[in-house]
Amino acid sequence: MQTTARSRSGLIQLWQRQHPARRIFAGFVALNLAGWGLLMLPISRQGEGAATWIEALFTAVSAACVTGLTVVDTALYWTPFGQVVILLLIQLGGLGVMVFASLIGIFVVRRLTLGSRLTTAQEAHADGPGSVRRIVVSILRIALIVEGTVAIVLWLRFWLGRGEDPLHAAWLGVFHAVSSYNNAGFALFSDNLMGFVDDPLILLPLAAATIIGGLGFPVIMQILKHAPHPRRFSMHTWLVLTGTGALLLIGTVSIAVLEWGNPGSLGPLSPGTRILDAFFHSVQTRTAGFNALDIGQFEPETLLVMDVLMFIGGGPAGTAGGIKITTFGVLLAIIIAEVRGDPTVTLFGKRLSRAVHREAITVALLSVALVWAATLAIMQLTSIELDRVLFEAVSAFGTVGLSTGITASVGMPSQLILVMLMFVGRVGPITVATALALRTRRLAYELPKERPVIG
Amino acid sequence: MQTTARSRSGLIQLWQRQHPARRIFAGFVALNLAGWGLLMLPISRQGEGAATWIEALFTAVSAACVTGLTVVDTALYWTPFGQVVILLLIQLGGLGVMVFASLIGIFVVRRLTLGSRLTTAQEAHADGPGSVRRIVVSILRIALIVEGTVAIVLWLRFWLGRGEDPLHAAWLGVFHAVSSYNNAGFALFSDNLMGFVDDPLILLPLAAATIIGGLGFPVIMQILKHAPHPRRFSMHTWLVLTGTGALLLIGTVSIAVLEWGNPGSLGPLSPGTRILDAFFHSVQTRTAGFNALDIGQFEPETLLVMDVLMFIGGGPAGTAGGIKITTFGVLLAIIIAEVRGDPTVTLFGKRLSRAVHREAITVALLSVALVWAATLAIMQLTSIELDRVLFEAVSAFGTVGLSTGITASVGMPSQLILVMLMFVGRVGPITVATALALRTRRLAYELPKERPVIG
Ligand SMILES: [K+]
Ligand SMILES: [K+]
Repeated sequence: MQTTARSRSGLIQLWQRQHPARRIFAGFVALNLAGWGLLMLPISRQGEGAATWIEALFTAVSAACVTGLTVVDTALYWTPFGQVVILLLIQLGGLGVMVFASLIGIFVVRRLTLGSRLTTAQEAHADGPGSVRRIVVSILRIALIVEGTVAIVLWLRFWLGRGEDPLHAAWLGVFHAVSSYNNAGFALFSDNLMGFVDDPLILLPLAAATIIGGLGFPVIMQILKHAPHPRRFSMHTWLVLTGTGALLLIGTVSIAVLEWGNPGSLGPLSPGTRILDAFFHSVQTRTAGFNALDIGQFEPETLLVMDVLMFIGGGPAGTAGGIKITTFGVLLAIIIAEVRGDPTVTLFGKRLSRAVHREAITVALLSVALVWAATLAIMQLTSIELDRVLFEAVSAFGTVGLSTGITASVGMPSQLILVMLMFVGRVGPITVATALALRTRRLAYELPKERPVIG
Repeated sequence: MQTTARSRSGLIQLWQRQHPARRIFAGFVALNLAGWGLLMLPISRQGEGAATWIEALFTAVSAACVTGLTVVDTALYWTPFGQVVILLLIQLGGLGVMVFASLIGIFVVRRLTLGSRLTTAQEAHADGPGSVRRIVVSILRIALIVEGTVAIVLWLRFWLGRGEDPLHAAWLGVFHAVSSYNNAGFALFSDNLMGFVDDPLILLPLAAATIIGGLGFPVIMQILKHAPHPRRFSMHTWLVLTGTGALLLIGTVSIAVLEWGNPGSLGPLSPGTRILDAFFHSVQTRTAGFNALDIGQFEPETLLVMDVLMFIGGGPAGTAGGIKITTFGVLLAIIIAEVRGDPTVTLFGKRLSRAVHREAITVALLSVALVWAATLAIMQLTSIELDRVLFEAVSAFGTVGLSTGITASVGMPSQLILVMLMFVGRVGPITVATALALRTRRLAYELPKERPVIG
């Protein structure tokens, strides 16, 4: 008895000695597993029996990693209990990773700013419980305000505009507000949001929540703090804001132009509704994943454009996925600097730290390699064409959740690959980039310098 | 009259004052145009009338840029005169760009080695006619030896082993030797080399010439000079040699594994012949483009693997295309250094110059963007699936010449896009990389340093 008690308190001490970010990461893993277990209970599934292990695992990871890909119909397959589990997974998973990424993101920036390596003791102090609590409280407060506002708007619309009874309308409002702010893309309708293709009072509030969540915590905080003085915004904030605007515009124009006459998508709609839906799906591509049109009917060219937007994703330390706007922006800045012949890479009047070049290249290329390998594996396991498989893999990696409709039918081994992509896509770029930025670089004696010929 | 004479001599002076590399580049452009003109003559085409402008343009650029994509049947559509024109375009285009790239490649390395910027006068001296002549003579001598040897082997095989009359066998030997050493992939058989699928005495000499040409001039010269002392090889040579070996192995294993049971490709062959053909097509993917199997029957997974190999290509300053093994190797070295936490990127015991990082990422990402945009445009212009269009675009950009069989039927606008890809693919990476390496970097006052969050 005594031995057990002592080792238990030893474990607790070991747990408490871990960096808060590491504890949150462990909590995130536990959340995925707990969700898997809960969704396998018979109480979660409608009708007789329980969900299969792969259905429960896929749905739990898809919810906790705020992806939104589904192998079963969220509206019909799960009981209200199961749907509440999904809602909690979305909320805890979305905000949990936001806290995790904010903590380590702030830490990376602070360490660089101090210009020297902190000792472990200093680190523990700087990121102690007080700082973690402040971040958690801020993140919860912002989520409550955005989700609350959107939930009320949706509630009124579902109740007064779409004829739902007020209680069910409230549930719909809360669920979709949480799902959109967390960029999860889960919906309580069998056809996702295709019933609301021409309803701006449903689509626009969801788009707004999606965009705000996708900016990321550091950007939202700076806007709240310095909104009247945008000159005080950091390079990070400028990069995310201009990148978000540019990618939204590119997506809206591309979808509008490429799908304008497609009878399976925008074709049958009025011109105004076509613009609304082009904008809405441009927003959803980065990376919330609601759809009001049948993505399976989109032109293959549109899918190819969306692949790029989904891969880039949103801002760091938010609810969006992808390699992040900042990673893409750094690569773009490197190319522009090279083409112009600048000695250093500058962004918004600031010099870009050289170590960031190599981090951005590493995150982007490892992500390309992962998506490519997963695409290859799924193509080998199934007989589906490249454009649909690539779209599915990018959607899973970018935690987008859009699909041409193949998710349920690709089979268990491919679904396991998608589960891996969703998990790695949600926490991989963050942890890889942080590990690169934070570790102590070995000092090397100087080797003779040489260069190969490029190109 | 006097004015004309004076301005003409002024033009000659202007021409002579240009850097030799620039004059060779102008000559290469003229070669493409001259080939276009010659192939439009009625004497070039079999039967009545002349080739259309797009057929002649496509074939001329495909030959001069040593690509090997065809919109008409080389064996049946062109007269012997037309085929000689194609042969000359391959030889002059292949070796011309080899000279061009060697000149500027040597210049880039020398400038870096001297560690300071040379004045224009010094440059003109260092790259004067003597040095150009030495390089041209070396390149011609190596080509003559390799092409001569392979031509003789093929001549004997076509004559004694395949029953051709000796004169025609000699023509076949010369044409295919030139086509393989220059990584051109043009063949004088309507089915390319599918009639020789199980003939190692045809396939292996062609593979050897392809590999040697694809190593590039700097590597071939170092091997000839230092073969007994591989420790004296430069980082460049080691990178190209190990990269070539690794990519050939990866290609052979991938094709063998993925196509082993495919009744449309390796399936019907004996096990030994399957290995032979897996190796042969691995060689041809980088980037000669002969085929002894129907690429249109390959599995989509195999095409996806080949896309990567074609995009990487061969060694710089050779007859292969792609972004080049060195560019890919530098990116890989950056990732490995980042993951290991090394402060500098090292390759084969040498430190990699930092400027090279940014050059490599620029060449690679601009190439990705170009291939992606071309794929999108061709998909918009046609109704062909992504995997075939992507394969065609990568094949054109990498000057490979393999095709799933769509080249002739994509239509004129898409063929013009392929022409652009072939030309830019052949000289673009070289000139972009050189322009980046050689230009004078502007000195900037130091801006405050900052970093965004990556990932
Ligand atoms: K999502
Ligand atoms: K070729």
